Amino acid sequence: MRTCLEAHVSLAESAEETLFERREKALGAGAPLFYDKPLHLIRGEGAHLFDVHGRRYVDLYNNVTCVGHANPHVVEAMARQQATLNVHSRYLHEGIVEFAERLVGLHTAPIESVIFSCSGTEANEVALRMARFATGKGGFVCSNYTYHGNSDLVGRLTFVEERESESREVRAFPFPETYRAIEEASSDVELGEIYLGRVQRAIEGLETGGAGFAALIVCSIFANEGLPNVPPGFMAKAAEMARRAGGLVIADEVQGGYARTGRWWGYEAAGFLPDIVVTGKPMGNGLPLAATAASRALINDFRAKTRYFNTFAASPLQAAVGMAVLDVIEGEDLRQRSAEVGAFLKRALTERKARWSAIGDVRGRGLFVGVEMVKDRTTKEPDINMATVVCDRLKDKGFLTAPAGAYGNVVKIRPPLVFTHSDAVAFIDAFDAVVEELDG
Amino acid sequence: MRTCLEAHVSLAESAEETLFERREKALGAGAPLFYDKPLHLIRGEGAHLFDVHGRRYVDLYNNVTCVGHANPHVVEAMARQQATLNVHSRYLHEGIVEFAERLVGLHTAPIESVIFSCSGTEANEVALRMARFATGKGGFVCSNYTYHGNSDLVGRLTFVEERESESREVRAFPFPETYRAIEEASSDVELGEIYLGRVQRAIEGLETGGAGFAALIVCSIFANEGLPNVPPGFMAKAAEMARRAGGLVIADEVQGGYARTGRWWGYEAAGFLPDIVVTGKPMGNGLPLAATAASRALINDFRAKTRYFNTFAASPLQAAVGMAVLDVIEGEDLRQRSAEVGAFLKRALTERKARWSAIGDVRGRGLFVGVEMVKDRTTKEPDINMATVVCDRLKDKGFLTAPAGAYGNVVKIRPPLVFTHSDAVAFIDAFDAVVEELDG
Repeated sequence: MRTCLEAHVSLAESAEETLFERREKALGAGAPLFYDKPLHLIRGEGAHLFDVHGRRYVDLYNNVTCVGHANPHVVEAMARQQATLNVHSRYLHEGIVEFAERLVGLHTAPIESVIFSCSGTEANEVALRMARFATGKGGFVCSNYTYHGNSDLVGRLTFVEERESESREVRAFPFPETYRAIEEASSDVELGEIYLGRVQRAIEGLETGGAGFAALIVCSIFANEGLPNVPPGFMAKAAEMARRAGGLVIADEVQGGYARTGRWWGYEAAGFLPDIVVTGKPMGNGLPLAATAASRALINDFRAKTRYFNTFAASPLQAAVGMAVLDVIEGEDLRQRSAEVGAFLKRALTERKARWSAIGDVRGRGLFVGVEMVKDRTTKEPDINMATVVCDRLKDKGFLTAPAGAYGNVVKIRPPLVFTHSDAVAFIDAFDAVVEELDG
Repeated sequence: MRTCLEAHVSLAESAEETLFERREKALGAGAPLFYDKPLHLIRGEGAHLFDVHGRRYVDLYNNVTCVGHANPHVVEAMARQQATLNVHSRYLHEGIVEFAERLVGLHTAPIESVIFSCSGTEANEVALRMARFATGKGGFVCSNYTYHGNSDLVGRLTFVEERESESREVRAFPFPETYRAIEEASSDVELGEIYLGRVQRAIEGLETGGAGFAALIVCSIFANEGLPNVPPGFMAKAAEMARRAGGLVIADEVQGGYARTGRWWGYEAAGFLPDIVVTGKPMGNGLPLAATAASRALINDFRAKTRYFNTFAASPLQAAVGMAVLDVIEGEDLRQRSAEVGAFLKRALTERKARWSAIGDVRGRGLFVGVEMVKDRTTKEPDINMATVVCDRLKDKGFLTAPAGAYGNVVKIRPPLVFTHSDAVAFIDAFDAVVEELDG
């Protein structure tokens, strides 16, 4: 005979199956879901999420909710503004001007003005078109395993083969990494030169192909590529190369920005200065909010040529929520926390490498760490299955991560910035337990 | 000596100038603004807005805030959900499934599933790409004075010359209207055939140009074109023509949908059945929220080919707010109000046509009315300046409209759906006063 608890869980599981079936109909079959058995979440608080069974999960995945799920300062700002005024941007409003000024002030790159939008996709659309207007050229260079968004134009930058780009307007270079060098090199500096040669080749491909070279666009920390360690000085040299060729440099900071690396911007961590900076995910703690920032000359030129208007963007709501998020990051010094807790996590995981041969590499900066799973440390053959199993087992133990990276074999650890040292300690214990199960 | 009030107003005006200058720097020069002297708004309630001087304005422009500025039911739903859970859509969540099911249930067209996004631009991107996948063709037919969004792809559909499209993937037909016929016709039915011939020519242009014909995309009520009266049966016949040519029919309901015309959908008012429906502006009463809805087969095909994921979309927040908006529209029967108050407005404005020769035509359905200003009723020469002056004078009297239409000479009246009969009466009084000033 089943216990009451078992019956309850079984009932809830069948309710989840029903919800899954309804979802497949209402949202279409194959709307993406995480985990072998998807989670049915109902509540969040800080770095923790709770499912329909009352089970608590430590969230090591969600960077959007950077100041924590249900952050009360953000909730209050959102509710207050929505109850006061939320209209489009063709009226004067103090809030959005103040928010733009605050954003500009956070940059060390030559950033002066901001165009707001609703998603990283929209903000990257603005960035790419801005580069085209500024240069009079049509083509973009990106890395071969990047992701910048899901529109027709931005989507063409996703997972582009180096030579066989579908579009004559996009050329890819192999993302730089010291872990798996594309060619043998006597040093990381020499390896960097090899990768720079591929960037050069991509630029030349656009020029000879007729589209011309408008911009180099990169995620400053190559997040989707798997947070590779990059040959020293690579990005500074690549940016210089792009400018010498008459193009602009676009830093997609949707993942790398907003204190994620322990610095405000990924480009600071990577050591280069972009012409255009794109931000998104963490800006609104879940409110759709994104921005394209650049010099005033670039922004003015774009505005003059497009009369760009975005119905929901640059609204009083985006401003109030966006500033509440900055208040919390600054007020609780989450940049410092990101640096410190992140360093602890990376150190602890690097130690695990010595104990478990399936860990090929541990990389990252601040609260963004990747654990690369391999079948063999010598061949470095990616172990996608192991990464998937590790994430599923961690989920079963109450810790949320997801597989990522160019080969899908990197356990991605990218918690809300309010993630604490004790959350990290608990996670490392769970990780050890998973290693024990799988390596036993 | 100036009175205290004068000094106060002057101070506030110089504060506005300073805010304007800061805005030009922070958001870039030329970020769009309404009116010769822009409004500095600080509060909204229902169909009313209040500026920094405490002045009240009746809002006849903002369709986004369809259930009223600061609607308390929406504010509460937004705050409650943000304080509970707001994460991306790769977990199971009841709310978004329920919201999708409710949306589907509002359609008379064969709509079964929904893909959520954050803006009309994003939703139209999905629609266009969906049509390409479904047909294997690349080209789109749109009207010559339409607007569907601001991305690279969707932006190519904006203000396209009939023959001289920049892109071989877009062909335009002249938007249908009975007021200014493109050619002489003995009847509206014959005129309809002339316009249909131009649609046919656009389709053939795509086929012979090599891109092929993927879809006809229209705003169901031709809102940006100026709400023309369309020859009888035009849209039903155009849709049939598109399908016969192997293409799909996309209804952009960003402006025409959500009870705006007194019916749920503009396509019902226009008398045709689309394959894909795009919604946006009013869905979230200011929260960025949009959707692309279609048959399950179309949605499944798109999902299978793209694995489409949108970070901020299909979130618990979008669901809660989206359903709160539907609650209010249904609970307060705003569809009926839109029909009734809209009919009163249109009738009253049509009566003014007899009194003032500058009014060439009054058109629209429900709470979406356009007053076309002309220099001469016989030549029907558009009077852009008059439309601009009328909107500015109305603003000075506390009533917010804006010039619109293919020629920029239509006074656009498109208030929140909570706009009342007494708001309408007050507006008509103000309109009469403006007529008296300008016609005096």
